[in-house]
Amino acid sequence: MRSLKSYVGGQWVASSNRAATLYNPSTEEAIAEIAAGEVDWKQVLAYSREKGAAALQSLTFAQRGEILQAMAKTLHEGREELITLATQNGGNTRGDAKFDIDGASFTLAAYADIGAKLGDTTILVDGDPEQIGRTARFSAQHIRLPRAGVAVHINAFNFPAWGLAEKAAAALLAGMPVISKPASATALVSHRMVEMFLEKDVLPEGALSFIAGSSGDLLSHLQGQDVLSFTGSSDTAKILRSTEGVIERSVHINVEADSLNAAVLAPDVELGSETFGLFINDVVRDMTQKTGQKCTAIRRIFVPDERVDDVVAAMSERLADLVVGDPAADSNVRMGPVATETQYKDVRAGIERLAAQTDEGFGGMGEIEGRGSKDGKGYFVGPVLRVTRDAANCDALHSDEVFGPVSTVAAYSGSASDAAKLIQMGKGGLVTSLYSDDRSFFTELVPLVAAFHGRLYLGSEKMAGQSPGPGTVMPALLHGGPGRAGGGEELGGLRGMAFYQQRTALQGDKAILAAITGVK
Amino acid sequence: MRSLKSYVGGQWVASSNRAATLYNPSTEEAIAEIAAGEVDWKQVLAYSREKGAAALQSLTFAQRGEILQAMAKTLHEGREELITLATQNGGNTRGDAKFDIDGASFTLAAYADIGAKLGDTTILVDGDPEQIGRTARFSAQHIRLPRAGVAVHINAFNFPAWGLAEKAAAALLAGMPVISKPASATALVSHRMVEMFLEKDVLPEGALSFIAGSSGDLLSHLQGQDVLSFTGSSDTAKILRSTEGVIERSVHINVEADSLNAAVLAPDVELGSETFGLFINDVVRDMTQKTGQKCTAIRRIFVPDERVDDVVAAMSERLADLVVGDPAADSNVRMGPVATETQYKDVRAGIERLAAQTDEGFGGMGEIEGRGSKDGKGYFVGPVLRVTRDAANCDALHSDEVFGPVSTVAAYSGSASDAAKLIQMGKGGLVTSLYSDDRSFFTELVPLVAAFHGRLYLGSEKMAGQSPGPGTVMPALLHGGPGRAGGGEELGGLRGMAFYQQRTALQGDKAILAAITGVK
Repeated sequence: MRSLKSYVGGQWVASSNRAATLYNPSTEEAIAEIAAGEVDWKQVLAYSREKGAAALQSLTFAQRGEILQAMAKTLHEGREELITLATQNGGNTRGDAKFDIDGASFTLAAYADIGAKLGDTTILVDGDPEQIGRTARFSAQHIRLPRAGVAVHINAFNFPAWGLAEKAAAALLAGMPVISKPASATALVSHRMVEMFLEKDVLPEGALSFIAGSSGDLLSHLQGQDVLSFTGSSDTAKILRSTEGVIERSVHINVEADSLNAAVLAPDVELGSETFGLFINDVVRDMTQKTGQKCTAIRRIFVPDERVDDVVAAMSERLADLVVGDPAADSNVRMGPVATETQYKDVRAGIERLAAQTDEGFGGMGEIEGRGSKDGKGYFVGPVLRVTRDAANCDALHSDEVFGPVSTVAAYSGSASDAAKLIQMGKGGLVTSLYSDDRSFFTELVPLVAAFHGRLYLGSEKMAGQSPGPGTVMPALLHGGPGRAGGGEELGGLRGMAFYQQRTALQGDKAILAAITGVK
Repeated sequence: MRSLKSYVGGQWVASSNRAATLYNPSTEEAIAEIAAGEVDWKQVLAYSREKGAAALQSLTFAQRGEILQAMAKTLHEGREELITLATQNGGNTRGDAKFDIDGASFTLAAYADIGAKLGDTTILVDGDPEQIGRTARFSAQHIRLPRAGVAVHINAFNFPAWGLAEKAAAALLAGMPVISKPASATALVSHRMVEMFLEKDVLPEGALSFIAGSSGDLLSHLQGQDVLSFTGSSDTAKILRSTEGVIERSVHINVEADSLNAAVLAPDVELGSETFGLFINDVVRDMTQKTGQKCTAIRRIFVPDERVDDVVAAMSERLADLVVGDPAADSNVRMGPVATETQYKDVRAGIERLAAQTDEGFGGMGEIEGRGSKDGKGYFVGPVLRVTRDAANCDALHSDEVFGPVSTVAAYSGSASDAAKLIQMGKGGLVTSLYSDDRSFFTELVPLVAAFHGRLYLGSEKMAGQSPGPGTVMPALLHGGPGRAGGGEELGGLRGMAFYQQRTALQGDKAILAAITGVK
């Protein structure tokens, strides 16, 4: 059985304060273990800060971009092996595995392009030079330089490839070394990725470290120039926000947590229209892709009263065709198991809670009969669609993120302001998708709900043929959301680098500022 | 005696859970009291969120800018009265009071100008539209809208006017209602400012509330769309970071805390040169202005070994001429008392700690003989200049912010990299000032220390005639710093509004995006 170690301080070492076993969620077979051992976490940080930071800071944006390009290429070359591991350790279908792994390569490549565009410089200028004295001689220029510390990344179990890559891309391009810790249960893919990067020698020494298992007391050693970025549950986020470094030394923390993402069908969208088709495609994809284990998955589907039956019927027709099972055993399988036993129990319990406040739409309580694995093993849950005609009073709908193939159709009046009130009850989310071909529906609704989201997806006939759906996080667009969603910001092109940089105002003789920044 | 109440929920009410007395720090006479009373803080927040937010969100940036302009005008008209109060309650000289009050008007006016430039819109676009599909039809646009909550501002005792205004300017222009809480001990000026704004009726109902005294359990009611901005000690910052709203509901918090600001004289600067004169002016002004009670004041003065005696002599000559006393009693007074008895004790204790690790440069331990008030009353401390030739081993120098007219000249080798190491020992600050006419000194040193600061002031011959010095915070330039300084960002023109806005990526049909934003 494969034994996973950490790559820290420039070597592979057993570092977890407890051993842990990784399973195949389709078969419940043990497939790897995390090696127990001891390491000096303070030294691990110091190594990254010294070796990694020095190496990256000495490179231009263009050179850092080349590193990201080489990382993207490495993943692309190792794609088939990673897909196999994602199926083994995550229960991913081939499509789900590609979504994760190709998403990782694509994001690295997108940041590589940004590096190439920023070119042969190490200082990022922020805005234009400004006159601040009586004459232009006394001027100001804001700049951004990498924080002189290490970026600690703690990722969620659902995207072992993309999670590592999207965080690392922005940090490395900004010039900060990364220590990446995946969720232990699905660490096989990210572990292999790091092995591949090392085999191809694409990164400077100390630029990327990797933690298998527990990170011990690492967080207690974070200093004021370090940053901490986390994707996962709000319970863990609370613990991280309370760590000494964050509280006492102003360590910047970025959190991406729970999100009750909504979709809204506007009253103008007719059954059978292209926009209706886009809507059904998007909500069904989001329910089933990655077995609903996406932070961007749609949990609340708001539909005008009179369309509820049509929507439930259209979705049910699609869901009924969905083959659920072990993706490795049957190429017809379109939805695998949830990733772990813990997830399985959580999803089951979540369905119970939701069912207590809603009616059945499709799939009962998600029982799998005659599907899943043959011997009754595996963490399989069938797609569950619930329905409510009393959305304003359905607490579970707005606060209980059931992280599986579970969603709820909720009736609303059809007015944009009513939709806004229901959307806001989610208390902040990553993305909401709105479907309409009535421009006034968007112009009314967007200003009411934008402050509650990091992203709004505006579905309409004209873009239907090009859209990857709201669940796909694109490197050019912001990822994160306020309130319940954690209050963070990732990606968004250059915007995602800001977290890893200190912004500094320079004031002085215009010619001296130009000598520093290269901007005339 | 004047009784200070809070202006919350649209009325003046006694709200502090304990009464408190305000004193004249020159005479120790009681001059006002904070009224004790009870108020429902949850309702106070709800009122601001509903009334204030609705009013501000319905206004364009241009209209919000007009409000700020009216606030600036109101302060300018009430200037003499406010100066008198600042002298009474803060011990300010006329110059110190003007620095605070005119700084407030100037910052409000600067944000009023930004509002006028942003014009007749309520949506701030963030970057250009971007193609994200196969064709330009599928595009993205990032926007910023005000967070749908309330901005709670907790200010420090040293700038009752500017502190309120600089935070309120950015929040109100962004479209968020403000609840402003000054430090109780010097609340007289900010209290009167709010009275003036109400007398002139310059703000919409609910847009600006004011807390005199304790804010009870207000912070425990903050929700995910609210924000909290704090200026003060790092001890209080820790408490605020640990509040439920911040930890559990992702309330964004901005902190501006301690800072051991440095000044560095480069080896090329000759005694008697214009740049040397600028340097001496700046360090003496920063030691004595506001009796050294400025978060941006220079605490560490790094001077090449061979220039230490010259610098101490030049500074001592200036400091010897400084008349310390009650600004209200003697128009020759150029430095008043520190603001409170607590500050007096803290500064005295800080001088003792610093003296244990440094040599005397000027002013002994800050005793005032034959100066200050006639009857031995008043919180007077004379200017204290310390000297060390072992900066690398002088802990107090780099970690102990003595918040009074106290600074230390510390020898360094003259090399930029040695200066960088010493500057970095402050673990993050608001501003460092560098003095040189050797361009290579700046190009070498700036990249080494920028990440440790929110602002770098580059002093040189060519800008000497126009510079207000590093201690002056300008609305166009970022104010805040990493690590020990709290990790926050304020001002910087448009940059300062980001904290009060949610950034949201819109993706969809290009024509629909244009209809929402007005950007083609």
